Amino acid sequence: MYSQELLKPDGRPLTLYSRYPIAEGIQAPSPGNEPIRANPHLRWHPLRGEWIAYASHRQGRTFLPPPEYNPLAPLIDPHFPTELPQGQYDIAVFDNRFASMTRVAHDPPSSIVETLPANGACEVVVFTQDPESPLGSLELDHLDLLLQVWADRTRILGEHPQIQYVLPFENRGVEMGVTLLHPHGQIYAYPFVPPVPARMQERQQAYYQENQRSLLQDLIQKEIEDKQRIIYLDEQAIAFVPACARYPYEVWIATIEPVATFIDLTAKQRRGLAKALKTVTLKYDGLWKRPFPYLMAWFQAQTDGQPHPESHLHAEFYPPYRTSDKLKYLAGTELAAGMFANDALPEEKAKELQAVSIILEAGVRV
Amino acid sequence: MYSQELLKPDGRPLTLYSRYPIAEGIQAPSPGNEPIRANPHLRWHPLRGEWIAYASHRQGRTFLPPPEYNPLAPLIDPHFPTELPQGQYDIAVFDNRFASMTRVAHDPPSSIVETLPANGACEVVVFTQDPESPLGSLELDHLDLLLQVWADRTRILGEHPQIQYVLPFENRGVEMGVTLLHPHGQIYAYPFVPPVPARMQERQQAYYQENQRSLLQDLIQKEIEDKQRIIYLDEQAIAFVPACARYPYEVWIATIEPVATFIDLTAKQRRGLAKALKTVTLKYDGLWKRPFPYLMAWFQAQTDGQPHPESHLHAEFYPPYRTSDKLKYLAGTELAAGMFANDALPEEKAKELQAVSIILEAGVRV
Repeated sequence: MYSQELLKPDGRPLTLYSRYPIAEGIQAPSPGNEPIRANPHLRWHPLRGEWIAYASHRQGRTFLPPPEYNPLAPLIDPHFPTELPQGQYDIAVFDNRFASMTRVAHDPPSSIVETLPANGACEVVVFTQDPESPLGSLELDHLDLLLQVWADRTRILGEHPQIQYVLPFENRGVEMGVTLLHPHGQIYAYPFVPPVPARMQERQQAYYQENQRSLLQDLIQKEIEDKQRIIYLDEQAIAFVPACARYPYEVWIATIEPVATFIDLTAKQRRGLAKALKTVTLKYDGLWKRPFPYLMAWFQAQTDGQPHPESHLHAEFYPPYRTSDKLKYLAGTELAAGMFANDALPEEKAKELQAVSIILEAGVRV
Repeated sequence: MYSQELLKPDGRPLTLYSRYPIAEGIQAPSPGNEPIRANPHLRWHPLRGEWIAYASHRQGRTFLPPPEYNPLAPLIDPHFPTELPQGQYDIAVFDNRFASMTRVAHDPPSSIVETLPANGACEVVVFTQDPESPLGSLELDHLDLLLQVWADRTRILGEHPQIQYVLPFENRGVEMGVTLLHPHGQIYAYPFVPPVPARMQERQQAYYQENQRSLLQDLIQKEIEDKQRIIYLDEQAIAFVPACARYPYEVWIATIEPVATFIDLTAKQRRGLAKALKTVTLKYDGLWKRPFPYLMAWFQAQTDGQPHPESHLHAEFYPPYRTSDKLKYLAGTELAAGMFANDALPEEKAKELQAVSIILEAGVRV
């Protein structure tokens, strides 16, 4: 992996990542030259026991710009300034202009509830220079690089003493509220372990203490034995519709053996995950022969510098559709009670995805 | 309050509620005469530590039927059979045909995760016979009756030993996935305390043990002193944008003094809540002069027969819009991490709602 750190005219860092050496002297552009003045803060929700981020400068953020203006494409016409330079690189990472958390947040307003500066980071990860190449179309080497980039960001962000948790994710499709269609994901780095990973960690720690094994590892063994819901399987990695799917087309990707964070992956495990990731995203797009929207989130151990043998790096995909023309809306029971109601059996949805034939690499059809 | 229990041809119960005596001899219709064969089950999600309901018969449920067919309107033309009879009544409650939980679920399939029959109830609450009268347009007496209906259902459902929690809610608007536009809500009765109320209960119990006071009561006192975010206030009830709002137009309605469940409300408190409810829903609809979508959920104590002095009946409204033409999508940080990022300050959104002038009752402008 090659990388190069640059600074944008508005003060934000930009890191280019590549499978090949990157030329020197690349200038980092930015849509504007004014320093970013975001100063988000957190407020404590006493009834739920969780933090909420307030970033009131976000309301004016870019919203489905015309095709001639793609801020995530390499800069061509200075009249349409973008976030990225030209040059040979595969993946780029920079701070979100419209961040819910920043490293320099300060002086939160006082309120009747507790407040804190929202000291974290919100990064954008542009997966490729090509606006028309979604994850599934990228070469395995390119996806392998993406897994290395996520490891690098986890390391760099996790070294900040104020950051406790690093979450790479991709919101894909207008159905997920995506404002820019160029293939990209995000990384949120939180100054606390957020509620969902905290809950998972609690469950995993309890299981590990009782069994000296990873909860997810044991679940994966049962999925392998049960065979019904597997979408991809090799010696290193697995993709499956979990028996307890909350979304109709939910899929998880994981290493077979537990790995705490992206940083701990072996080259073989990365290759397995890259294949699983390519298989899942190609099958999704193949299912209805159109781009398949989803939220993809990667869960890993918190970045407290402690060993986390209970933790097990994995991705969860939450697609918003329940059939090709019907969305699954989150409403009363999901949002208010927290109990998901799923209209479809995971076994049935797994069959649909299993039936989609894709080409993983030259000569390998899955 | 007057009520009458009927039985539908397909075996489902129907209860009519009214401010006035209800005529005898009303026949309950149903869209079909076939017994409902729903047999939903629950599966345990080991990583999140929560139950998921699977109801695979739900995929074919009614979806935005043409206007001549409104299954929630009183039956007129037998060619278009509906759920409700003609006659003088205000509110009707019946079992959902497409239930995620039923009282008679049995023999759950085996799985690699723990399974249980989904023994609960999913009821539909038709707020009025008039398809064009949303909550805000109903008379205060009618809203008062609705609060009594929620109390009656809480009592009746809560008496089942298998039911632990009763949640009345309304999904309003196509943006919330609503398939029938006739004003109605739902009641879900769960065989466990679902994750969100469980979390609130845990926080409230801890606070009560430390302070011998209701957490929400103390928060409400601070909201009253702070004045900034109040939408409605009288001696009995309050509506406000909470300082820790997760949704831009989030509003809570509560009694000033803590009340554990709908059953415990005094007549005066009911009147206060009815006024707060009418004010909030009218202001919502007045804000952009169009029907305002939301999820409204009422949280109360669990139905375990134990005293819950820590509990404080209240409603939370989660509207999906962040501006008049932009939805707030729940994506990466909300769904995967559980941390909400709110683009708007609660103080600003409260001002917008405060500025909407409505007529609460003859001669009373708020």
